Amino acid sequence: MIRYKITFAYDGTNFSGFQIQPHKRTIEQTLKTIVNRMAKNPDPAISIIGSGRTDAGVHALNQVAHFDFPYHIPEQSMVRALNSQLPLDIIVKKAEIVSNEFHARYNAHRKRYRYRVTQGEFVDPFKRNYTAHFKYPVDIAHMNRAAQDLVGTHDFTSFVASGSQAKSNIRTIYEAKVYYEDHDHEVIFEFVGNGFLYNQVRIMVALLLEIGSGQRPVDDVQRVLAARDRQEARMTAPASGLYLVNVDYGGNN
Amino acid sequence: MIRYKITFAYDGTNFSGFQIQPHKRTIEQTLKTIVNRMAKNPDPAISIIGSGRTDAGVHALNQVAHFDFPYHIPEQSMVRALNSQLPLDIIVKKAEIVSNEFHARYNAHRKRYRYRVTQGEFVDPFKRNYTAHFKYPVDIAHMNRAAQDLVGTHDFTSFVASGSQAKSNIRTIYEAKVYYEDHDHEVIFEFVGNGFLYNQVRIMVALLLEIGSGQRPVDDVQRVLAARDRQEARMTAPASGLYLVNVDYGGNN
Repeated sequence: MIRYKITFAYDGTNFSGFQIQPHKRTIEQTLKTIVNRMAKNPDPAISIIGSGRTDAGVHALNQVAHFDFPYHIPEQSMVRALNSQLPLDIIVKKAEIVSNEFHARYNAHRKRYRYRVTQGEFVDPFKRNYTAHFKYPVDIAHMNRAAQDLVGTHDFTSFVASGSQAKSNIRTIYEAKVYYEDHDHEVIFEFVGNGFLYNQVRIMVALLLEIGSGQRPVDDVQRVLAARDRQEARMTAPASGLYLVNVDYGGNN
Repeated sequence: MIRYKITFAYDGTNFSGFQIQPHKRTIEQTLKTIVNRMAKNPDPAISIIGSGRTDAGVHALNQVAHFDFPYHIPEQSMVRALNSQLPLDIIVKKAEIVSNEFHARYNAHRKRYRYRVTQGEFVDPFKRNYTAHFKYPVDIAHMNRAAQDLVGTHDFTSFVASGSQAKSNIRTIYEAKVYYEDHDHEVIFEFVGNGFLYNQVRIMVALLLEIGSGQRPVDDVQRVLAARDRQEARMTAPASGLYLVNVDYGGNN
């Protein structure tokens, strides 16, 4: 078997998330069906191992997965073969033949997530599925300062949704920033971490927006982290604004 | 009755165009249902008169329509009332109380259309419904020069789709331009005219793309116009790239 690492983008709007679920349109199922058809339906079926799940409505610019294919296809031909069969809301950008030691989930060192927020009176109909709308004015500098309190190794129990199956809620955030993107008139949140808990990014964004709009003090992140209590963070920002930007394997593929 | 002029945007992706058709989701029907519900279902029903139709999948940034409402609602309240009931793919940006002489279709002086084209190897999944993809390299300067041959008053018989009900195919184009938009990496076509025939913009764009990619000579627009024959222009660019940018009433509202 030859192991392929693929890097791909998807518009999550019309998917019920990454992970296979019965009778749902998911990214994993869509890829799995095509890869198995290309391999002439082997038994056992080829599995698609993603770097991690994304929820319904969440997007990816450079998601990564691996699978084991029964015969050799040149990398560029694999890209073309997949894209010729994939629906238009998924695109494979790169395919690489990698060592059988490579694992898309276990080898992931860092992930970068971006969250896009629009402001103003109207929800732009062209952005309804690609951003979240927050109507209150926000102080970007306050949010950016508060975001720095998330950087480091912390117990993120206050920032995990119920339903998480993680054994530990300790994660490291290497980078957090909040800035205004002039061209698109959007507030952007970016986080780089060694992994994120279920809904963690969306809960962090919701908390920072409450800080930015003056509903919470600027130093509230420290208090919420210390509380280790999901009730403290309360809100979860919508899926539509969230993008998995990339997965870094630290040269390990 | 009080006449309201409304200016609104829509993402045309999930609509079967502007005009009412049985059992189809259209912009006209969506607005009509809400306006009549607000007016407590008057008999006869209130009609929505648009500046003109747009096809399935075509978008609008500032479409205009008028309707006659049985009682007075302040303009800002009309905006809010409509938006609170409209689906997220239509947004009313402005409502104005206008003279009963105002007519959204008959008084339209000029319309501006924009067409967005993406290039490159991959179709960006986030742009699949909002641009058209053209894979061959194009010469922007050639297309822009050719576009100038469309400016002026011409018989556009070569640029009208079958099914047009226009009495005359003579129209005036005031402005035509083709340029590269750096931030989004897109080729943009813009046309301002006193009116456009059925599919005219999409046929003009397809012809210009054939010129830009060297499939036709740069001066071919002149020959095609003179031929007055739809077979000469051949292709129609996809609906997804087309935007009605605005409708100019020349101060006449």
